[in-house]
Amino acid sequence: MRLATMVEADRSIRAAADTGDGWRALPATDLSGWFASGARLEPGELLNDAEPTLPLPRPHKVICCGLNYGDHILEMGRELPSYPTLFAKFADTLTGPIDDIVLPRGLQVDWEAELAVVVGAELRRATADEARAGIAGYTVANDISVRDWQNRTLQWLQGKAWDASTPVGPVVVSPDAVDPAAGVDVVCRINGVERQRGDTSRLVFDSAALLAYVSAFTVLRPGDLVLTGTPGGVGQGLRPPTFLTDGDVLETEITGIGRLRNVIRLTD
Amino acid sequence: MRLATMVEADRSIRAAADTGDGWRALPATDLSGWFASGARLEPGELLNDAEPTLPLPRPHKVICCGLNYGDHILEMGRELPSYPTLFAKFADTLTGPIDDIVLPRGLQVDWEAELAVVVGAELRRATADEARAGIAGYTVANDISVRDWQNRTLQWLQGKAWDASTPVGPVVVSPDAVDPAAGVDVVCRINGVERQRGDTSRLVFDSAALLAYVSAFTVLRPGDLVLTGTPGGVGQGLRPPTFLTDGDVLETEITGIGRLRNVIRLTD
Repeated sequence: MRLATMVEADRSIRAAADTGDGWRALPATDLSGWFASGARLEPGELLNDAEPTLPLPRPHKVICCGLNYGDHILEMGRELPSYPTLFAKFADTLTGPIDDIVLPRGLQVDWEAELAVVVGAELRRATADEARAGIAGYTVANDISVRDWQNRTLQWLQGKAWDASTPVGPVVVSPDAVDPAAGVDVVCRINGVERQRGDTSRLVFDSAALLAYVSAFTVLRPGDLVLTGTPGGVGQGLRPPTFLTDGDVLETEITGIGRLRNVIRLTD
Repeated sequence: MRLATMVEADRSIRAAADTGDGWRALPATDLSGWFASGARLEPGELLNDAEPTLPLPRPHKVICCGLNYGDHILEMGRELPSYPTLFAKFADTLTGPIDDIVLPRGLQVDWEAELAVVVGAELRRATADEARAGIAGYTVANDISVRDWQNRTLQWLQGKAWDASTPVGPVVVSPDAVDPAAGVDVVCRINGVERQRGDTSRLVFDSAALLAYVSAFTVLRPGDLVLTGTPGGVGQGLRPPTFLTDGDVLETEITGIGRLRNVIRLTD
């Protein structure tokens, strides 16, 4: 099954599900509202002329794991971790699957293609098995990072939480239709040139492990997002370091889930 | 003026304001709702038998500054910063001014008394003057930190965001009634023994500077919280390092604002 928040031709938005016969409306304006209202799967009328937008515009929590692929850890000059490195984004940080990413000119804007996990159950001190059963699905994200701000201090938040900088979507694919633990490719292309290709079976902490770990200190609820980290190939790791420029086309794709396509707009 | 979320004798909660003649109801169930609905100051009936609870139970953002008093920076072994060190908490991280703080036994639970700023306007790329004008008031917080988890990785979130661990309140005092830039005392006592005493005039980044800095990358909205950092005297800085134990009484007080009193409960 696939879930999405769809924009219709009249610009109204609707939560929707595709169980095999096309996108049908769910009784909520978006997937955040649908998860909050109990996530009952009662698809209604078919949606025509509708396109996916940001699937989860109002998550309570967006938690990200850094340094979770061996190759990316090595390119950033660090050692393999015993614990997941976690930081937060805000709901405001997210943007849609085909939206421009608008940031001030002069920043070191870097790419980080990532698998994102959508929480489907309330998880508190969950075991890995409970966490796995509490996964509603998977989507695609790019953890766009403003490196100069990220590196100003010890804490990364100010480089990771620029408003409307992290594209997410286009759809949420249920665990019966995609299995990241078995390995799917996470790919980032800039202007058509492949910059990252990771295999989710190589994650140090897989989706269920991350959800269980987080749930030890804070509750996760349906509609929350956990980003699982990025593979090697980010701009900061290139020699010389390379960052996004105005007009760059950023594509982020995961096999079996879908593709984001965002144009970078750097403004004065 | 003082603002609060009050618990009445029948356990119902109400936003309330005290403009000099006692606590009067505002048209919202709590201050988060009152700020979201426009924060119109139209006090209604007097509230009797009511006590302050967590003033802002549903902020969109809780952003914290670390390493912001010179003495605390030195005790943690770091240098004076050029930029504020920022990290996030969640709404779930907060708890009320007299609530027990319940955490699993065996953690290194440390205290961090802090001035908290309540945002009163929408701030985007604000100047310091705009940020200062956008401060709704000040309250008291204790940025309880689970040091062993905080120090597991480079990012502090997992030590800073345990559910219901950060007491906030009891009231929000408006800027015309308290001026932290001129200096108020931030005090932490454990079982009656003073452990921290800081002067907010010594902050490296004051309230307006912090709000302006944050608003460069993410919008702040009425009802959001920014914690300004803690002065010297935390448990990790003692020789030997000392942490909270079951039954400890934690008092956090700021001159002219009020006092939190929370009992630590460490459970199996």
